[in-house]
Amino acid sequence: MSDEKYFKNITPRERAIFEGAITMGALFHQFVGTPVSLESVDSLENAIKTSLELQPCIMHVDVEINREILKDTENEYHYLSLTGDMLDVRVVSEYDGIKIIVRMEYVEDLNYPLMYVEEVD
Amino acid sequence: MSDEKYFKNITPRERAIFEGAITMGALFHQFVGTPVSLESVDSLENAIKTSLELQPCIMHVDVEINREILKDTENEYHYLSLTGDMLDVRVVSEYDGIKIIVRMEYVEDLNYPLMYVEEVD
Amino acid sequence: MSDEKYFKNITPRERAIFEGAITMGALFHQFVGTPVSLESVDSLENAIKTSLELQPCIMHVDVEINREILKDTENEYHYLSLTGDMLDVRVVSEYDGIKIIVRMEYVEDLNYPLMYVEEVD
Amino acid sequence: MSDEKYFKNITPRERAIFEGAITMGALFHQFVGTPVSLESVDSLENAIKTSLELQPCIMHVDVEINREILKDTENEYHYLSLTGDMLDVRVVSEYDGIKIIVRMEYVEDLNYPLMYVEEVD
Repeated sequence: MSDEKYFKNITPRERAIFEGAITMGALFHQFVGTPVSLESVDSLENAIKTSLELQPCIMHVDVEINREILKDTENEYHYLSLTGDMLDVRVVSEYDGIKIIVRMEYVEDLNYPLMYVEEVD
Repeated sequence: MSDEKYFKNITPRERAIFEGAITMGALFHQFVGTPVSLESVDSLENAIKTSLELQPCIMHVDVEINREILKDTENEYHYLSLTGDMLDVRVVSEYDGIKIIVRMEYVEDLNYPLMYVEEVD
Repeated sequence: MSDEKYFKNITPRERAIFEGAITMGALFHQFVGTPVSLESVDSLENAIKTSLELQPCIMHVDVEINREILKDTENEYHYLSLTGDMLDVRVVSEYDGIKIIVRMEYVEDLNYPLMYVEEVD
Repeated sequence: MSDEKYFKNITPRERAIFEGAITMGALFHQFVGTPVSLESVDSLENAIKTSLELQPCIMHVDVEINREILKDTENEYHYLSLTGDMLDVRVVSEYDGIKIIVRMEYVEDLNYPLMYVEEVD
């Protein structure tokens, strides 16, 4: 069993943080760059959610792509490439009964899509 | 108008080939690596299709991810990362009434996910 | 031989356009999202170039990532995620003696990183 | 200051784990799919290292791409797409004097590129 061999040096809470953080890094770097518009955004949110929920210890992934940015940015081609400032994401991970929530949101003061632990058990 | 300024040096058939090829390269490099299983595969196919159909001159994208590979490859985590050998894709592009189909399929003899023009008007 | 089997329905010029376009689509969607700063930019340009030059028919890839954007955009973390508006790329592809150049550059009028055929034999 | 506002609910050790894990997830999903061969592998390793070392709390990234796989897998095109089974990575992260090492290596028993905390302060 991989848990006993590889993860006995960290606590359950640390394990939940570890897996939630991997999944948030994965989400950003897998999907940033994807073409997206108001027509395709539901489908993309759904695929992000269902694919990342496969990862170890991940209970739930909520993804909101900002429709206002999709509406406001006009170009001849009527779509944009997904960027970090469009994303608001919550990843719920759990290990051994301990649950945490990792959040990513664009923080204007930081000019940066910040990832942090929003809730801890 | 960007077409007159940037694309007057190639024929409509070349333009259709150009746009179909961009989209196939984009598809492979955007989505390879995504976690995928039998539960998530429909959702991922749908997002690939709807996002790539946004690109210029793209009429239709058909994506089939190989369920046999997903079934046969067992690991403790019950999912895989999407690879080129799981993908069978047709991209239909059209410019000025000229339609072409770009295909990607894994060719075992070549050990390579080959992209080629399957049909030309 | 794959060329005779898969590519006999298109001309050498179309083949060069096809391969150049695949590589440009690949480049954008593989590397957009990568963390980049003034310290790492040479290394990233080099890896983009050497990896994409491996693709079929690709003779040369020139990548310039816009240093002004890297300098001007300040945040607490001193790096950005690579986006299409930072990229100026030329891909030289050749098939059977016919050479073409595919260009990608950010066109402000279009608010879009446009890919087009810059030169044809 | 973002640390006080966003990270006061976790310990320094948890913060180091959090940032190391994000970076490992980012690395996998940013670079898997990149064309790679024996000629380009040094350049790709270098770009992975320098780009991921930009992320918060990351002191050091060591990446080894398996040359044996690159040598053994022959195809007409003389390159492969980067996959998880080629990667052996160590990410050293540090927060407030507490250092941890996140490792990714392909574990044959698991048929999976496992990410785990290899060392903790």
